[in-house]
Amino acid sequence: MRPYEFIKAKRDGQPLAPDDIRAFLAGYTRGDVADYQMAAMCMAIYFKGLSPLELAAWASAMLQSGEVLDLSATPGVKVDKHSTGGVGDKVSLSLAPLAAACGVPVPMISGRGLGHTGGTLDKLESIPGFKVDLSIDDYKRLVRDVGACLIGQTATLAPADKKLYALRDVTATVDCIPLIASSIMSKKMAEGIDALVLDVKVGSGAFMKTLDDGRVLAKTMISIGEQLGKKVRALLTDMDQPLGNTIGNALEVIEAVEMLQGRAPADYTELTLALTAEMLVLGQKAKNVEEARVQLKRVIDDGSAVKKLQDIVAAQGGNPKAVLDFSLLPKAKATADVVSDAEGYVEHIDSEALGLAAMALGAGRERSDAAVDHAVGLVLKKKKGDPVAVGESLVTVHYNAQNRLEDVKRRVRAAYRIGRMRMPPGPLVLERL
Amino acid sequence: MRPYEFIKAKRDGQPLAPDDIRAFLAGYTRGDVADYQMAAMCMAIYFKGLSPLELAAWASAMLQSGEVLDLSATPGVKVDKHSTGGVGDKVSLSLAPLAAACGVPVPMISGRGLGHTGGTLDKLESIPGFKVDLSIDDYKRLVRDVGACLIGQTATLAPADKKLYALRDVTATVDCIPLIASSIMSKKMAEGIDALVLDVKVGSGAFMKTLDDGRVLAKTMISIGEQLGKKVRALLTDMDQPLGNTIGNALEVIEAVEMLQGRAPADYTELTLALTAEMLVLGQKAKNVEEARVQLKRVIDDGSAVKKLQDIVAAQGGNPKAVLDFSLLPKAKATADVVSDAEGYVEHIDSEALGLAAMALGAGRERSDAAVDHAVGLVLKKKKGDPVAVGESLVTVHYNAQNRLEDVKRRVRAAYRIGRMRMPPGPLVLERL
Repeated sequence: MRPYEFIKAKRDGQPLAPDDIRAFLAGYTRGDVADYQMAAMCMAIYFKGLSPLELAAWASAMLQSGEVLDLSATPGVKVDKHSTGGVGDKVSLSLAPLAAACGVPVPMISGRGLGHTGGTLDKLESIPGFKVDLSIDDYKRLVRDVGACLIGQTATLAPADKKLYALRDVTATVDCIPLIASSIMSKKMAEGIDALVLDVKVGSGAFMKTLDDGRVLAKTMISIGEQLGKKVRALLTDMDQPLGNTIGNALEVIEAVEMLQGRAPADYTELTLALTAEMLVLGQKAKNVEEARVQLKRVIDDGSAVKKLQDIVAAQGGNPKAVLDFSLLPKAKATADVVSDAEGYVEHIDSEALGLAAMALGAGRERSDAAVDHAVGLVLKKKKGDPVAVGESLVTVHYNAQNRLEDVKRRVRAAYRIGRMRMPPGPLVLERL
Repeated sequence: MRPYEFIKAKRDGQPLAPDDIRAFLAGYTRGDVADYQMAAMCMAIYFKGLSPLELAAWASAMLQSGEVLDLSATPGVKVDKHSTGGVGDKVSLSLAPLAAACGVPVPMISGRGLGHTGGTLDKLESIPGFKVDLSIDDYKRLVRDVGACLIGQTATLAPADKKLYALRDVTATVDCIPLIASSIMSKKMAEGIDALVLDVKVGSGAFMKTLDDGRVLAKTMISIGEQLGKKVRALLTDMDQPLGNTIGNALEVIEAVEMLQGRAPADYTELTLALTAEMLVLGQKAKNVEEARVQLKRVIDDGSAVKKLQDIVAAQGGNPKAVLDFSLLPKAKATADVVSDAEGYVEHIDSEALGLAAMALGAGRERSDAAVDHAVGLVLKKKKGDPVAVGESLVTVHYNAQNRLEDVKRRVRAAYRIGRMRMPPGPLVLERL
C-alpha cells in the first residue's frame, strides 16, 4: 500500500492491516516515508484513533525499528516502571533498589529533565561519579549481577519513536493518546522487560487532566502490552502537588535515600510502596500487594534497600559513600526562605510553577542541550492542607546564583494559594487497572 | 502565533484569525513553516474545515503569495470560467472565443492534462504554432486587443498554491473541499479577473461524486469570491459520460470549431452555451441568460465566433487557417473501430476508463513531465441511451502506435455497458448557484 493510500485509509476510518503498518513505519525509519506524510498520518490518528489491533502493530513496529535488548541471561521476570511525569517525582530512585532488594530484576532506561519536570538521569548524576551512559553489555551484566541498572536512552532502541516524537512535537500531535501509548510502550519494551508497572498521573498538574483521559491512556498501554505478551499493571495517581518535599537533583536523591530508610514524606513513601508492590507481584516475588508490602517493609527495616542502592551506585561508577554521607553530594552555596504573607491553610500548590521555578534556579533545563546544576532546588516546608502563619517558611530555596533568587522567590510565592479552607490532599492512588 | 499553536487551534476547532492565517501561509511560502507542519494543518482542515472568514483569508493569502495580474488596462468586466474537470471537456476552446466575440474580455490561465483528464493547453498546442507560454505583458495585451488569451500557469502566480498542491498530493489531503476551493479561487483570482463562472461536475465520473458535495464545493468557492469582491456564478453539471464525441487533443479542437459553427453534439453545445451565457451576464453584456443566448446564437450564425477563434490563434502564434482547414491539424496514421458484441442500448459509459484509454494511446500523460501525441484519440459513435446493433461501431480509435491498439480497444469495450434498458442522459445542468 502506498503511503498516500495508507494515510487516506486511516483518514477515512478504514482498518489498517498490521503488515501495512509495519511497512509504513519501517519506511519512515528508513526515510522512504517523508516527514510530511507521517505528520498527516499522525493528525489523522489524532482524529480517528487506532484500534487495539492497529495499536499493537504500531507499537510493535516502533519497537522493531531498532534493537530489542535480550535480558534472558538474567533469570526471573524483569519488571520496570514508567511514570507519565510529575514534579518532584523521585520514585524511580527508591523503587529500583527496593524491587531489586526483593529479588525483582529492574532494567530501567530513563530520561532527562525538560521544562518543569525533572529527569531520573539528572538526579542520579548528582551522585559523584555516577555514569548513565553505560554500554548495552554493561547494562545487561548489571541487571543480572546487581539486580538493577539505570541508564539513558540509546540511539539503537526504538529509533522510529525518537524520530516520530520530534515530529509530533512540532505538528501539534503530542497530546494524542494512541501515539503517547505506543511511544511509551515501544521504548519500554525495547529495554527487554517482561512486565511493566505504569504510574499514570492525572489532575490539573498532569499531562492527563482528567481521570477519564488517564484511564483511557492506561487501558491503551495495557492493551498494547497484553497483545505483545507483556504483563502491564497501571495505577492512576493524583498529581495535585509536588511529590514529597524536594524538587532538585541532589535534594531529591537525599529524599530518596530517606525513603529507603523509612523516614520520607508520606505521599512519596506511599506512592513508591504502591508501585513497587505491583512490581513484586508482576515479578512473582509476592502473591499479592499485601504480601509485597510486608517484604518491602522488611528490606527497608533491615537496611538491605539502602545497601542495594549503594550497590547500584558503586556498579555504575558512583561513590557509594554518598548514599549515606550527604555531605559528599553537591550542595548549594546558600539558602533563602519564601515566607507566607497570609495566615490560613495551603489550599493549592501549582506543581508546574514550582517546577519552572526550580528550572529557573538551574535545577532543570529549558532546552534539551543545556546543563543542569545538581545542587540547587526547592524544599517544601508546607504542603496542601498544612496550616500556615504569617512569616512562616513555605519553601526553602537552595541557590547558587544570587541574581536569580528574587525571580524564583516571586514564582514560588505565586505558586502557593493560602486561604481559609482546610483542604487536605485526597487519596494518592485513585484507581488500579 | 507559532505554527504549533496555529495547527493546534484548528485541530481543536478554535477560530483562526485572518492575520495568523496570512502569517502561516507567508511562512510556508518562504519555507519557515515546514512541509510537515503544513501537512498536519491540511489534515486538521480535512477534519475541522475552514469557516467562511477563514476560507477567504486562506484563499487571499494564497493569492497574495505571488503576483496578482492587473488587467485594468482592459475596459469592462473580465470574466473567466473554471471547470472541475471532465473527460472530453473542450468547453474552454469554444467558450473563450464566444464570450470574446460578444465583448466579454476572457483572461484564461489553464492547465495541462494529467491521468484520465485532458488539458486545455495540450488541446490548443495541437494547432500548429500555437504558443501557451506568452509573457505576462503579451497576455495583458492580448486580453485587451483580441479579447481573450489562453496561457499556462506561471511560477509567479499563487506560488503557495503550487507548493501546497504538490504536498496535498502525497499526504491524502487532495479531496478536501476548503482546500480545493481556495486552491482554485486563488489561482483564478491571480489572473486579474473580476468575475468567474464555475462548472462543478458531479456524478460517478467526477471528482465530486454527489450533488450535495458539488453544491458544498460551489458554495464554498462562491463564498470566497464574494468576500474577496469577485462575482461568482456556479453551474452544477452532470458528468455521466464524456462531453461531446471526441477525446484527444486535435480531435477536440475540431469538435470545438464545429461547436462555433453550430454543428457539434448537443451536450457539448448546450454546456458551452449555458456557461458562456453566464459569462455574458456577469460581464454585463446581457441582462439575463435568455438575452445572452440570443447574442451567442448571433455570433455563431454570423461567423464572428469562429473568426474570434482565428484571431486568438493568430495572436498566439498559431496558424489561423487550421481553424477552418482541419487537414492542417495533426492526424493519426490509422483508425480502428471498437464494435459492439451485444445488441441493446448504451446503458453506461465509464468516462474515466475512456480517459485512461486515450491516455494509453498517447493523448494524455501519466506523469506531468511526459509528452503527448496531439493526433491520437477516440471518437465516440454511440453515447448513453443510443441503440446499438451487434457489430456496430461504438468508438473509432485514432492511433499511431499499432502495439497499443489491442489494449486500448479492450479498455474501450470494457468502458461501455450495453443492456436492455434505454436510459437516455438526464439534464446536463442540474443546478444554478
